[in-house]
Amino acid sequence: MLPASPAWSRLGEHLRETQIIGSIQSTLYWDQNTRMPIGGAAWRGEQLSLMATQLHARQSSTQYADLVQAAREEWNQQTETDDLGPRGRNLDLLEEDLRRQQSLDPALVSALATAKASGYNLWQQARSASDFSQFAPALQRLIQLRQEQARQLAEPRSCWETLAQPFEPDLSLKRLQEVFAPLREALPDLVAETASSPRSRTASWDLPEPAQQQLCDALLNSWGRNPAITCVARSPHPFSITLGPADYRITTRVVQGQPLSCFLATAHEWGHSLYEQGLPDQSHQWFAWPLGQATSMAVHESQSLFWENRVARSRPFADRWWRQFAAMGAPLDGAEDLWRALNPLAPGLNRVEADELSYGLHILIRTDLEIALLEQGLDVADLPAEWNRRYGELLGVTPANDAEGCLQDVHWSEGLFGYFPSYLLGHLISAQLCQAMTSEIGAPEDHVASGDITPLLGWLRQHVHPVGRALNAEDLVRQVTGRLLDSTAFLEHVRGKVQASQSA
Amino acid sequence: MLPASPAWSRLGEHLRETQIIGSIQSTLYWDQNTRMPIGGAAWRGEQLSLMATQLHARQSSTQYADLVQAAREEWNQQTETDDLGPRGRNLDLLEEDLRRQQSLDPALVSALATAKASGYNLWQQARSASDFSQFAPALQRLIQLRQEQARQLAEPRSCWETLAQPFEPDLSLKRLQEVFAPLREALPDLVAETASSPRSRTASWDLPEPAQQQLCDALLNSWGRNPAITCVARSPHPFSITLGPADYRITTRVVQGQPLSCFLATAHEWGHSLYEQGLPDQSHQWFAWPLGQATSMAVHESQSLFWENRVARSRPFADRWWRQFAAMGAPLDGAEDLWRALNPLAPGLNRVEADELSYGLHILIRTDLEIALLEQGLDVADLPAEWNRRYGELLGVTPANDAEGCLQDVHWSEGLFGYFPSYLLGHLISAQLCQAMTSEIGAPEDHVASGDITPLLGWLRQHVHPVGRALNAEDLVRQVTGRLLDSTAFLEHVRGKVQASQSA
Repeated sequence: MLPASPAWSRLGEHLRETQIIGSIQSTLYWDQNTRMPIGGAAWRGEQLSLMATQLHARQSSTQYADLVQAAREEWNQQTETDDLGPRGRNLDLLEEDLRRQQSLDPALVSALATAKASGYNLWQQARSASDFSQFAPALQRLIQLRQEQARQLAEPRSCWETLAQPFEPDLSLKRLQEVFAPLREALPDLVAETASSPRSRTASWDLPEPAQQQLCDALLNSWGRNPAITCVARSPHPFSITLGPADYRITTRVVQGQPLSCFLATAHEWGHSLYEQGLPDQSHQWFAWPLGQATSMAVHESQSLFWENRVARSRPFADRWWRQFAAMGAPLDGAEDLWRALNPLAPGLNRVEADELSYGLHILIRTDLEIALLEQGLDVADLPAEWNRRYGELLGVTPANDAEGCLQDVHWSEGLFGYFPSYLLGHLISAQLCQAMTSEIGAPEDHVASGDITPLLGWLRQHVHPVGRALNAEDLVRQVTGRLLDSTAFLEHVRGKVQASQSA
Repeated sequence: MLPASPAWSRLGEHLRETQIIGSIQSTLYWDQNTRMPIGGAAWRGEQLSLMATQLHARQSSTQYADLVQAAREEWNQQTETDDLGPRGRNLDLLEEDLRRQQSLDPALVSALATAKASGYNLWQQARSASDFSQFAPALQRLIQLRQEQARQLAEPRSCWETLAQPFEPDLSLKRLQEVFAPLREALPDLVAETASSPRSRTASWDLPEPAQQQLCDALLNSWGRNPAITCVARSPHPFSITLGPADYRITTRVVQGQPLSCFLATAHEWGHSLYEQGLPDQSHQWFAWPLGQATSMAVHESQSLFWENRVARSRPFADRWWRQFAAMGAPLDGAEDLWRALNPLAPGLNRVEADELSYGLHILIRTDLEIALLEQGLDVADLPAEWNRRYGELLGVTPANDAEGCLQDVHWSEGLFGYFPSYLLGHLISAQLCQAMTSEIGAPEDHVASGDITPLLGWLRQHVHPVGRALNAEDLVRQVTGRLLDSTAFLEHVRGKVQASQSA
């Protein structure tokens, strides 16, 4: 029996209603991206804006602040129980979020909302016209506002670090550079090696939509999808979203000329969803509480990358699946052909389409550039030239225009700085977790070869998913793998892939 | 230029936000019926309940009442403009709705919500078990609560009339019986005539889902569907819903062994949607205002029935479409075969599956029974026997059990009394509007034969759709057709169908 804790319960009720509103917002977003006719956009904007206003009002209200404070006072007076630690951690995280909400001048919050909306629109126009100068003033404004935001938050962190906190709690620049340093060293040479004998990302064949659909269904069925709590749909950009404690959705898309795109996106988004499905949902730590939430973008990405890269792109996976692809009409003579099609290795201009190896360089370039923009006085006007120079140096490719170059990603158009590194950290975390998994239950590839992935999921469900925000990403990795995060496991993995690719 | 009317504008802002919340509720409902995995049901219930609470609070708040009153006072002082009449009508309708909201004891509102939820659950169980006695106490309770609701509303109307107002504003029992009387006389004999040589509702053939899908797409394309503002999906029960001023959705379903069910449901729901698409949306009369809304369920139904029965079930339609059905694999030797399959004539036990002719009898039975329950002291326990007796007398069929009989419809399980007549009134209105249309622009069948339905839609868009709630159903019919609503046109239509069916 837990001691009576009325303040804790009242706070829980408040968080629960906040979560209901948040999940309504998510449902509107889901529909917007999967069903809504284009004509519905303006009105949907009004619906989303009303929900956002309600959410903001709740999360910054003095009533809410009082609830948090009362729960803290009650906690201070409670005697030791098994539960006291997690409750304290929940309160720590809520207080931190609340402090951030309260530090911001409402005028800044409103200016940021406007600048994001306008930045996104101008970015779309600039990208269509392939003309960075149309977007530059908006980017300049977003940088200034984000710098102001960091100043108002007044944390003992640099500007970039402060902005990265929502994605990677507790991450420091020093630590990031330390983790990325070996990649800066090793990746360019490895990429250059593959560039000499590139294998195109685009297959010479294609599959009709219904065939791709059937293969995706077969994949999720083989991975134990429960249709009673999951839904799969199509959207222009694949994503995973959770709409309720037993309502998990993913989307995928069919790309003409890329017969494996839909399949790999399904694997990727399903990995995100499995993480969400495995988050803790016990009575009082349920998903309205911080401990019920994903701990960082990098950990989220490590989970999607595990199923995409370690399982679906593995050699034994190709052994088991190539006949199904062939039966659908793919011109494959054997597993080797499918494996090669699943594992292109060729440096290119586009991050989203990059292979596992060159992906890191795309991220390093963005990370360096956004730090330069926010903290080192890089002039916005110089961004395209700097971007192109670095692509030439690191990847040996040069964008023909801004659309192919520094306008390709949406993130900066909404002032999202500090987000990109999570993608690469996700690769590193995935690799290091994989190593630990291998030493405990054997290599994932062996389980894939046996046709039963249950032990893989079981291991993640035991060690990774239920942690929620109880630990940040670094602490999670250390707890699970017994050592600090570094790039060793990742570099070993990609070196193996290059080797296999060349010897095959 | 309109005179300044700040109170009117403030009221409009309030209604607009109410409409946003209402449309969020509709979006949640849409998703619930088209995408949501079953596991999402409980949480979706919480989302819907939160939105319902917000809506109710807004619509019954003194702040809102003050806004309406201020707008009325402002209106009283305004000089004559083109706009003064419609504004006054809007205020009349808002005041009426508000008066109803305010007349109800909150305890009754809450008791009704509980009784509806529990009634629906018990009805589902009772229907599964085909045992009316499991539902009877819940129905008894709903009847008592609805009677109490009518007492509290204290309108100069009978109990049943009061409860029917939300569906058919201004409808009286006397008028309803007057309109239905000729149907009571004529329909049983006509149905008996067809019963002697019945044509089954179930075709001896079927079509695969993709073929049905393709035919439905072709139908909507031929009717000018604009995909930028419309969306079509699947749901267990077909429906039409409007989620925003440029966001119209319909659903359909594929029924095994009924190859035309999906196609006709598409035609039907599209008719509902066209009405919504044609409602007035000018600046100040936009869909947040009463004048921007559908005037009655019967008028709504008249629009869906027009496209289903007058267009898609017409002989020239079969002439134009049978080859497309045959190309998809339907075993048709000519238009006659398709027309017969589209026009079954055989009395049965089920309202939803009834043909145009016997449909009216299903409604007359329900109408008489709910009036008897609410106003004439019919004992709930006697409902199944009364139901079965009337089916035997009027349709010559007898339910084998309660599931086939008085438990078949959902309406009463939620205490919806006064709703059923709208379906039949919709048939009558559709027929009478069709007559007027014919005399002005020629018979719909001729336009269908020519392959261009634009004039049909154009006529409805001119005379029917833009009226909104400016006129109630009867006044709309009188304005458009020049005479009071009666059953002449409908009976003429069904007599023609029986004749064509026998001579063909």
